[in-house]
Amino acid sequence: MTDADAAAPPHLLLGSCDYPEHVPQDRWTRYAEQQRSAGLHFVRIAEFAWSRLEPEPGRYDWAWLDHAIEAYHGAGLKVVLCTLTATPPAWLIRAHPEVLPYDEQGRVREFGSRRHYDFASPVYREHSRRVTLAMALRYGRHPAVVGWQTDNEFGCHATSRSYGGASAAAFPEWLRQRYTVVERLNEAWGNVFWSMEYVSFDQIRPPILTVTELNPSHVLDYARHCSSLIADFQREQVEILREMSPGRFITHNFMIFESGFDHYEVARGLDFASWDNYPLGMLEHFAPPGAGDDVKTRYARTGHPDLIALNHDIYRSLASGGAGLGREGRGTPPGMWVMEQQCGQVNWAPYNPLPADGAVALWTAQAWAHGADVVSYFRWRAATMAQEVMHSGLLRHDETEDRGLAEVRALDQSQFPAGDVPARVALLHDYESLWLYDQQPHAAGMTYWAQVVAYYGALRSLGVDVDIVHADADVSAYAVVVAPAITLMSPERAERWTRAVQGGVKLVSGPRTAFRMPGGQTWAAGQPGPLSDLLGVKLLQFDSLRPTLTQDVSGPGGAFQAQTWAESYRLEGAQATYTYAGGPLDGHAAVAAHGNATVIGAHSPDLLRAVLSDVLAGAGVEVTHLPEGVRISRRAGRTLVQNWTTERVTWQDHTLEPVSFEVLAHA
Amino acid sequence: MTDADAAAPPHLLLGSCDYPEHVPQDRWTRYAEQQRSAGLHFVRIAEFAWSRLEPEPGRYDWAWLDHAIEAYHGAGLKVVLCTLTATPPAWLIRAHPEVLPYDEQGRVREFGSRRHYDFASPVYREHSRRVTLAMALRYGRHPAVVGWQTDNEFGCHATSRSYGGASAAAFPEWLRQRYTVVERLNEAWGNVFWSMEYVSFDQIRPPILTVTELNPSHVLDYARHCSSLIADFQREQVEILREMSPGRFITHNFMIFESGFDHYEVARGLDFASWDNYPLGMLEHFAPPGAGDDVKTRYARTGHPDLIALNHDIYRSLASGGAGLGREGRGTPPGMWVMEQQCGQVNWAPYNPLPADGAVALWTAQAWAHGADVVSYFRWRAATMAQEVMHSGLLRHDETEDRGLAEVRALDQSQFPAGDVPARVALLHDYESLWLYDQQPHAAGMTYWAQVVAYYGALRSLGVDVDIVHADADVSAYAVVVAPAITLMSPERAERWTRAVQGGVKLVSGPRTAFRMPGGQTWAAGQPGPLSDLLGVKLLQFDSLRPTLTQDVSGPGGAFQAQTWAESYRLEGAQATYTYAGGPLDGHAAVAAHGNATVIGAHSPDLLRAVLSDVLAGAGVEVTHLPEGVRISRRAGRTLVQNWTTERVTWQDHTLEPVSFEVLAHA
Amino acid sequence: MTDADAAAPPHLLLGSCDYPEHVPQDRWTRYAEQQRSAGLHFVRIAEFAWSRLEPEPGRYDWAWLDHAIEAYHGAGLKVVLCTLTATPPAWLIRAHPEVLPYDEQGRVREFGSRRHYDFASPVYREHSRRVTLAMALRYGRHPAVVGWQTDNEFGCHATSRSYGGASAAAFPEWLRQRYTVVERLNEAWGNVFWSMEYVSFDQIRPPILTVTELNPSHVLDYARHCSSLIADFQREQVEILREMSPGRFITHNFMIFESGFDHYEVARGLDFASWDNYPLGMLEHFAPPGAGDDVKTRYARTGHPDLIALNHDIYRSLASGGAGLGREGRGTPPGMWVMEQQCGQVNWAPYNPLPADGAVALWTAQAWAHGADVVSYFRWRAATMAQEVMHSGLLRHDETEDRGLAEVRALDQSQFPAGDVPARVALLHDYESLWLYDQQPHAAGMTYWAQVVAYYGALRSLGVDVDIVHADADVSAYAVVVAPAITLMSPERAERWTRAVQGGVKLVSGPRTAFRMPGGQTWAAGQPGPLSDLLGVKLLQFDSLRPTLTQDVSGPGGAFQAQTWAESYRLEGAQATYTYAGGPLDGHAAVAAHGNATVIGAHSPDLLRAVLSDVLAGAGVEVTHLPEGVRISRRAGRTLVQNWTTERVTWQDHTLEPVSFEVLAHA
Repeated sequence: MTDADAAAPPHLLLGSCDYPEHVPQDRWTRYAEQQRSAGLHFVRIAEFAWSRLEPEPGRYDWAWLDHAIEAYHGAGLKVVLCTLTATPPAWLIRAHPEVLPYDEQGRVREFGSRRHYDFASPVYREHSRRVTLAMALRYGRHPAVVGWQTDNEFGCHATSRSYGGASAAAFPEWLRQRYTVVERLNEAWGNVFWSMEYVSFDQIRPPILTVTELNPSHVLDYARHCSSLIADFQREQVEILREMSPGRFITHNFMIFESGFDHYEVARGLDFASWDNYPLGMLEHFAPPGAGDDVKTRYARTGHPDLIALNHDIYRSLASGGAGLGREGRGTPPGMWVMEQQCGQVNWAPYNPLPADGAVALWTAQAWAHGADVVSYFRWRAATMAQEVMHSGLLRHDETEDRGLAEVRALDQSQFPAGDVPARVALLHDYESLWLYDQQPHAAGMTYWAQVVAYYGALRSLGVDVDIVHADADVSAYAVVVAPAITLMSPERAERWTRAVQGGVKLVSGPRTAFRMPGGQTWAAGQPGPLSDLLGVKLLQFDSLRPTLTQDVSGPGGAFQAQTWAESYRLEGAQATYTYAGGPLDGHAAVAAHGNATVIGAHSPDLLRAVLSDVLAGAGVEVTHLPEGVRISRRAGRTLVQNWTTERVTWQDHTLEPVSFEVLAHA
Repeated sequence: MTDADAAAPPHLLLGSCDYPEHVPQDRWTRYAEQQRSAGLHFVRIAEFAWSRLEPEPGRYDWAWLDHAIEAYHGAGLKVVLCTLTATPPAWLIRAHPEVLPYDEQGRVREFGSRRHYDFASPVYREHSRRVTLAMALRYGRHPAVVGWQTDNEFGCHATSRSYGGASAAAFPEWLRQRYTVVERLNEAWGNVFWSMEYVSFDQIRPPILTVTELNPSHVLDYARHCSSLIADFQREQVEILREMSPGRFITHNFMIFESGFDHYEVARGLDFASWDNYPLGMLEHFAPPGAGDDVKTRYARTGHPDLIALNHDIYRSLASGGAGLGREGRGTPPGMWVMEQQCGQVNWAPYNPLPADGAVALWTAQAWAHGADVVSYFRWRAATMAQEVMHSGLLRHDETEDRGLAEVRALDQSQFPAGDVPARVALLHDYESLWLYDQQPHAAGMTYWAQVVAYYGALRSLGVDVDIVHADADVSAYAVVVAPAITLMSPERAERWTRAVQGGVKLVSGPRTAFRMPGGQTWAAGQPGPLSDLLGVKLLQFDSLRPTLTQDVSGPGGAFQAQTWAESYRLEGAQATYTYAGGPLDGHAAVAAHGNATVIGAHSPDLLRAVLSDVLAGAGVEVTHLPEGVRISRRAGRTLVQNWTTERVTWQDHTLEPVSFEVLAHA
Repeated sequence: MTDADAAAPPHLLLGSCDYPEHVPQDRWTRYAEQQRSAGLHFVRIAEFAWSRLEPEPGRYDWAWLDHAIEAYHGAGLKVVLCTLTATPPAWLIRAHPEVLPYDEQGRVREFGSRRHYDFASPVYREHSRRVTLAMALRYGRHPAVVGWQTDNEFGCHATSRSYGGASAAAFPEWLRQRYTVVERLNEAWGNVFWSMEYVSFDQIRPPILTVTELNPSHVLDYARHCSSLIADFQREQVEILREMSPGRFITHNFMIFESGFDHYEVARGLDFASWDNYPLGMLEHFAPPGAGDDVKTRYARTGHPDLIALNHDIYRSLASGGAGLGREGRGTPPGMWVMEQQCGQVNWAPYNPLPADGAVALWTAQAWAHGADVVSYFRWRAATMAQEVMHSGLLRHDETEDRGLAEVRALDQSQFPAGDVPARVALLHDYESLWLYDQQPHAAGMTYWAQVVAYYGALRSLGVDVDIVHADADVSAYAVVVAPAITLMSPERAERWTRAVQGGVKLVSGPRTAFRMPGGQTWAAGQPGPLSDLLGVKLLQFDSLRPTLTQDVSGPGGAFQAQTWAESYRLEGAQATYTYAGGPLDGHAAVAAHGNATVIGAHSPDLLRAVLSDVLAGAGVEVTHLPEGVRISRRAGRTLVQNWTTERVTWQDHTLEPVSFEVLAHA
């Protein structure tokens, strides 16, 4: 392997996140050698090391990091360095308190943990460029340094948006750029409603602390503004790194289900995306409504396979899905990294159980099958101090090898070759739709992610591989495209979808598709607006169901019960394939097909599976009905069969032990 | 019908709320004609139109509203205009941020939705008078304009009280007016407790952010102060409208279960009260403790009949119940309007289901039977923008007729004649008691409204019509008076009740009746204070029951289980009719009768029904034991039989379809 | 009895809390005589009377209190006076708003209830000394005055810590005193983590409003700082009282489960500790996780015996447990008082039921058996005003005798002789461990008090008397020492424990014992750090269990299920007595014994009981397996048998009525 291939190795490689500044210097060489001998190739360092590298304004202390990098280098490890901006030190904050961000209650978010800065702060931007340049100058061409991570986990702890200070101050100008004259903004936001019309851009503030609910258009534009601030903030760092550290990749470690910014916009300019995969915390903490106590108990020690896989597919697909990754980089075909991989208990969910035996290996194999080129465990040694004392590492506090390291050491990395995920199905994704969807849910639990997870889970239960693709991307090469929750529809987007469907792509869309115009209002001529011709329907009614209410639906695949949501259609060309029975929607179309396009108005995982199964079969995509907890994923001509249950299972002649996997060469 | 009869038509008339400013001008004439041809007679407009009528300070734009009113007029519709003050525009707020109100956390409530003003603000008062005068001068004598609505939904979104700014600044002076010297305030509030005594009125602030619970007397007086601010604010508008718009009625659209101000005080000076009736949102959002998931599910698509009826009766009875409506107006006998009537899904509850087929017609018929002269649907066309995109109208977003409109169109309005509700039972109501009751509930769920709903529901289940009457009103003409929760008792009030009971009225009072003096303290000589002689008891113990604890009670009507609350009495003249068994109250009186007066100390809907049934029978009030979901209401010599269930029911030879009604001429 | 014996009478004596300032003067003599004739000897007064004693700055009004004290004196009652500082009056707060404390949201906590001051405020300290001196000069040598209570319920309503103002301003200097140079603080706190290193002490603020979780070391030191502020605040008052009121005792009335300050530090300088015992509010409001609805229902009218007993033992043991009580006082052996004893319903829990018949007597007897020399009921007459209208007293609002008074009057006080509690078991307690434990619980519900209550309850169910002793105290005289949750371990503490165990004491420690260093970090060489040799184990894994997950454990005492928490050990000298089966801990040691030391890693009340039963038997401590709701406690050669159930129970030939007790002379 050469440096240039670091990000795209011939088969899955492993790494870990290490913090030399947390341990005495006498450990550095030993740790590096232990890492290498455990089969690790990469180490990510320094994302929180600012106060050690610049202990006082302008006084840099490089010596310790020089030594640490040499230690890794000496052991044959490749180093991923980070820009330092996730944790501005105390001296900076006390000198410039205006750098601190504001929360949704209008309060300053104080120093004392991490991510305590406003992306728009001119002062902080200057420090960001200065310290990034200093790092790049010092290490940008170091032979051990193969790549960079910008900052750390944008958006974590609800930090995508600061609701005051610099971000608030920059909002009027952002709006002026977008709308030129305030009348256009008033029109786009529908500000005539409740007399919310502005006379000048300068009157407009962040959407917080209003007497009652917010105008969703106001929220939408503030989200767009803050997303673009993150993109700008990172772009400044990327430009410096490109110039000063040639030939190295640049990535960012994105977050589980992070929803605060447009990942397509922020990923642009990177070489590939990476993300931080914590399956157990994810299930307990981030699971969408619908994952009840039974699901959380069944998968308490493995995480839910589909929630993990969905995040892998989101971040792998950023390259193909519209963000244009790699175009500005080294030219290498972009892959995906898991920059932080859980390898023992985490510490941030209400409950933090130990992983099952085999789980760390299974997570690693799954990551590969969903496109990861590198899996890097968090963290090498468990922290003995501060906020993460209760979090595990590959080494325990006492430096003995923890359970996860034994599993890592036993992995045969060569069974996981590089190559493509052969997805013939695309699931459409769009952060603007997400923001709008969740702003006016209309039924508690009817969220964007709940819809996406329902569709994605149905596809995976049918054994189908999936790309997650931006709603404006070219999808003409896919057999089937599903749009669970693309509620924002521009005329251009509608035209693009129409062309794809006319070209033979089969489309399945979910409730509220094309409900909104790009400004956030709904289509005055009725929904699904410019998609009406394609789908052959008009929206008739939507019904919001409390948990104790359901709505019967039946059709060729059987009888089902809609929960949470049921919308019905007037047929204008389409044919009803499933129909509601009883209640206010009695006799209305619940699912309608119009040539290659199908719209599903009811929320019911079982109904979804029935409809998708038919559409996939019709498109020639192989469907395999998998039992609960068994999953298959394909990459590079191999099939990874996974058993996520704590029982031995047999699937198509293969018997798998509890929490285990098998790599099949031909399947 | 002439203009002068607008508010008191010969039979029920219909209307809708329309927003010409939300749609292109080319719709106005068409919409008006559609409304008229659908059987509507009224249209309410302009309550949120300030930013369009005065786009910049002092520059009025009347032209569009002139045209809109002409369009309605041309179609034969009567127009109800609104004063504009519910939504001060951005230019006003940015020029005078001191107009903004403060929440209970001491934070400014920001611009960006509605009701963002402090009733006490001198600046806002001036703008209120100015813009009301401008509206009245422009349209006050227009032939289409038959009446006015002041502002919109006082108190909505917890806006009755601003906890800082102008309202806070005005509090000391209000207190000085009430108490003259601070020693009297200290005495009335019991400020010797915890050394809370003040040396001067200027030291006194709004009751928020104290270290622990608030002095209930402090809360009570702040509530009185803020209530009087609302009354003053409205009175300034009413005076202008009376002078500039002679012969038109003036009303306000009150809210479901709104508790933030004294409605008797604020209604004074109006011609009649109207209210905004959203049965489904009410059940999901405002239902008092005790309406469990089973009730919310059973009535999810109709709302609960008694919750709706109670609000009708509250607002109809404002005229007879002490507010003196109509006295300053046109002289017409005051009726009641439903100014906003749900006609499809709403958007503000956690779940917002579609109404059942028939529900819109049933709500309309029920409104008539409880005294409504006009029912006006909200809104003509569903909003395509901003906060209410998900709310329905009579027209859908795409201008097709929604389900509700079909039901409205099919109504025969002539079957609902004008006339009186022949109630022989009065339920006593008092906002000061409400404030005190809920300030120290002592048992979670033991609220004022929970008590009122329990008594009211018991009466309706017995087929009895009810007036809701102020606790100080003359009730000598009623056969039976029930006082579920009148916890504040002045000597004058006690004397008035005593005279009524001595005159033959039967009185039934609930727990905590007469527990408090008007200042908020309890009676030092024991409860029920000045009512002790009338009731023939003294309060012995009160017991607060967690949901898993009950207290047995038995008597002539059977055995019951008290929940949440059980209080017992020492008999001083009265006789125990029901007695506690077991527990700390074993053998104590739970219900005691003393001539015409009966006091019920236990919270138990079934016990209530048993006691009330006996008292009503004794008073010669006809009692009909109705099955769950069947209700009867009487008006103008007719009886409305209602089936609120989703099953066909037979009641006394009448068979009713699910969610339907029948008007009987003689019953 | 002479004055000098007031605090240590020959047998249990009774008292009440009275508020002459709340009633007309004509009641004072009558109340005092009623109290004396009801068998009361003491009265506590004036803790909230500042505004009456100093109505304006510098103008004292002693006359009324002179008269009140004379009235008590005349009736033969002994008076306990209070310093006035729990409720600074309005004139002080309005003149010096900087006295007000800040809450955890950074908001000022306003005047209008009680405890609205910052312990660090120099202005308030001056007023505290001034008004304490004035009181002491006036009454310090009055023959009726036998003792003093400082302030009232330190910490109540989360007032131990002010998160701004004077307390915040004093923090840097406190840190400088502790660490001298900021580098040592950075090291102790582990501030290298997330670049939280400070350059100067002045940069350090209270631990609030950070972007995400706080550094536990930061929280720990702020807790220490605020605890020392309370101790300093009180010491200033104690010094004045010692000088000006010789021969009188000084105590403070501590709170149920109060956790905000180090009670050992704050109790130092007092003569004995007293506390405020509200069994029903305690169960409903303060019960630790694990007390489910079934427990709360079963004991709704008596409180849970072990929760009450634990608090008695905590406050009795302050003398022997490290606080050094009495050393600076009169020389009398320190006892314990219940300064406020519930005698009817309280008003501050979500539900506030009446006590069962017999409960007041049972609580009084239990208090004696756990070391109380005096039980003083709260309050003489129920308050008719302000925040506590719904709270009961010995007299009702109407001055009739309430149920509690009948029970008090019937008590034979001579059956409760003075004397020692013969505990041979010590439970170790430490507020620093508490703060650390709860800062990073890792599993919801895994709290310090939940652990302590589990161990303490197991001991009481085995009929064992317990002292609660500071973790650094000398425990060599005990047979068995249990350490449920001593997570902070200094080398000195470890050495002390080791010596005790080597001396023959048997030690049982719970999960997370010795997990932390004194600065809050964990032991880098592995846990239990310096206790590893003593326990003969190293911590291997810890597992955080959601409520739907359990972990099987089995051993000689049977099979059990760990809930919430399971940690396992590597044996380094110890022997596994209980072992995990299944799951990630399969085969690991759950309980390990090493000579006299036993460590229990699993949370399971039944397992605890099994292990403790064996250890106690091995130490020669008599074990009696008591049925649910039956408890025994020993004092002065007598055994109090208690029936806390609502059924008659028979235990060892003794039949007890529901909610009753029996005093056995020899048992």
